[in-house]
Amino acid sequence: MPVRPLLALAAPLALAACASSRPPPAAPVPYRSMGDILQASAPSDWRPLREEDAVVLELPGGRVVIELAPDFAPRHADNVKALVRGGYLDGLAVLRSQDGFVVQWGDPDGDEPGKARPYPRGAERKLPAEFTRPAAGLAFHRLPDPDGFAPETGFVQGFPAARDPRSNAAWLAHCYGAVGAGRGEEADSSTGAELYVVIGQAPRQLDRNITVVGRVVDGMEVLSVIPRGPPPMGFYEKAEQRIPIRSARLVADLPAAQRPRLQILRTETATFDAMVESRRNRRDAWYKVPAGHVDLCLVPIPVRAAP
Amino acid sequence: MPVRPLLALAAPLALAACASSRPPPAAPVPYRSMGDILQASAPSDWRPLREEDAVVLELPGGRVVIELAPDFAPRHADNVKALVRGGYLDGLAVLRSQDGFVVQWGDPDGDEPGKARPYPRGAERKLPAEFTRPAAGLAFHRLPDPDGFAPETGFVQGFPAARDPRSNAAWLAHCYGAVGAGRGEEADSSTGAELYVVIGQAPRQLDRNITVVGRVVDGMEVLSVIPRGPPPMGFYEKAEQRIPIRSARLVADLPAAQRPRLQILRTETATFDAMVESRRNRRDAWYKVPAGHVDLCLVPIPVRAAP
Repeated sequence: MPVRPLLALAAPLALAACASSRPPPAAPVPYRSMGDILQASAPSDWRPLREEDAVVLELPGGRVVIELAPDFAPRHADNVKALVRGGYLDGLAVLRSQDGFVVQWGDPDGDEPGKARPYPRGAERKLPAEFTRPAAGLAFHRLPDPDGFAPETGFVQGFPAARDPRSNAAWLAHCYGAVGAGRGEEADSSTGAELYVVIGQAPRQLDRNITVVGRVVDGMEVLSVIPRGPPPMGFYEKAEQRIPIRSARLVADLPAAQRPRLQILRTETATFDAMVESRRNRRDAWYKVPAGHVDLCLVPIPVRAAP
Repeated sequence: MPVRPLLALAAPLALAACASSRPPPAAPVPYRSMGDILQASAPSDWRPLREEDAVVLELPGGRVVIELAPDFAPRHADNVKALVRGGYLDGLAVLRSQDGFVVQWGDPDGDEPGKARPYPRGAERKLPAEFTRPAAGLAFHRLPDPDGFAPETGFVQGFPAARDPRSNAAWLAHCYGAVGAGRGEEADSSTGAELYVVIGQAPRQLDRNITVVGRVVDGMEVLSVIPRGPPPMGFYEKAEQRIPIRSARLVADLPAAQRPRLQILRTETATFDAMVESRRNRRDAWYKVPAGHVDLCLVPIPVRAAP
């Protein structure tokens, strides 16, 4: 909430009488903020970062941690891991920073035969599109709020996702921090060698049009402040404007002392549900009108340093 | 659309047969991109920046142009103008940069009696809240798409807005670039001396809870890359981290040669409607599944240099 700098944060208060579009509960309960709820969480509400499926990028501005989503994009996740393990990304660079949309990295000469950096052993140059997957078999924790882009939205093990019961399809949603695999016009032209990260208003029109391969779980503030390239698409015009990727490593391959020790709130827990409700209806002293609604991409997915 | 850097942009194509949730039109019409539509626009589709209601901030990273919204927040707009004309903002600073949310500027000593910068003559220290206004009398150009936060959304002369026919209230929406007046717990505790700008996913839960006084029409890329302050709220801990505001001027007060010469697409035109439809259903060669929906805060409001 935008407040004056010296104002203390509002204390939790019972505000059942404030102007909401929903009726107040019969027995008013004290409002619990997201901070209160997380503080009262149990250790079992959190899961560790999956180290075999997590990548650390080192940029001049700091460290970025990406968790891959093999449940949604197994072939792309495997290929990203093979590329990272083969050192493919080391010394490549952020090539694009488009305000309100994405930053994107890869090989600037990737489309020029003879100049393109060779793929390491084990990385494939051709993959199927992984835009959607069958919804069956997926532990989909549904968000009750309506959504304009999908019949249903929710969370799958810490990833914002969507689902269409009629077609039995599920897919990852393009929320802030989503990591996708850049492609050309052909649906199956992505390999994971070139990745983009959403830094602006959730571009949900990309859903089901491109393979989402993971999510930034730490270090978004390193990516989001990268100077923008020229409009309309934000590709830098000069090589020296590019932001180098010093290294990319699988977390599981790092020495133990260098691994990020992160925990992610389990999105299938009552703690997470309580947090969502605290965002849907803010009933602290600052908010005068609770929204009665939350958007999929406005729901924070808490990450913390392992205690 | 995230593409490989050397791939040409997709040419406009008729793609009526692609997988849409809506039936294809009886007589397929060639798809026109936003670029095509704007290129074919008439001079009368554009209006000039309102120089009497526009403020230019000069920051180390460049120029930011804000258009005020006196139709929605007349008292705050007047006060911002009085503060700017009295030199109040010159030498103040960006105090806060919270990733995915807002940047905010003002007087770091604003709440400390004796240390606070005095308001200039003509600026008021107490204003009524201007969270909503009557919808009657407002030329509200409605967006047909459903919205989770408001019964109706649309545009009023270049500003994204919302409306509730039952309460006859209208308000400006917290989309990317929205400029609001920071306040304390009391609804009427904002003056416009401290302003924030949305740099993240549209925080629509703030709608109707705070006074929105305008919108950044140029220079968002200057604000969006300002280094983030520490979580949770992004206020800088050290004075030297703050980003100074070198000057703030009303556009009408600048020498003619220094004024930004901008035009804003009129949001009540057929050209704008065509552009919205081109965003709602992308039918170029790159998109495989048109979304059939657009979110209020995903609709671009084009601004161009005056020809």
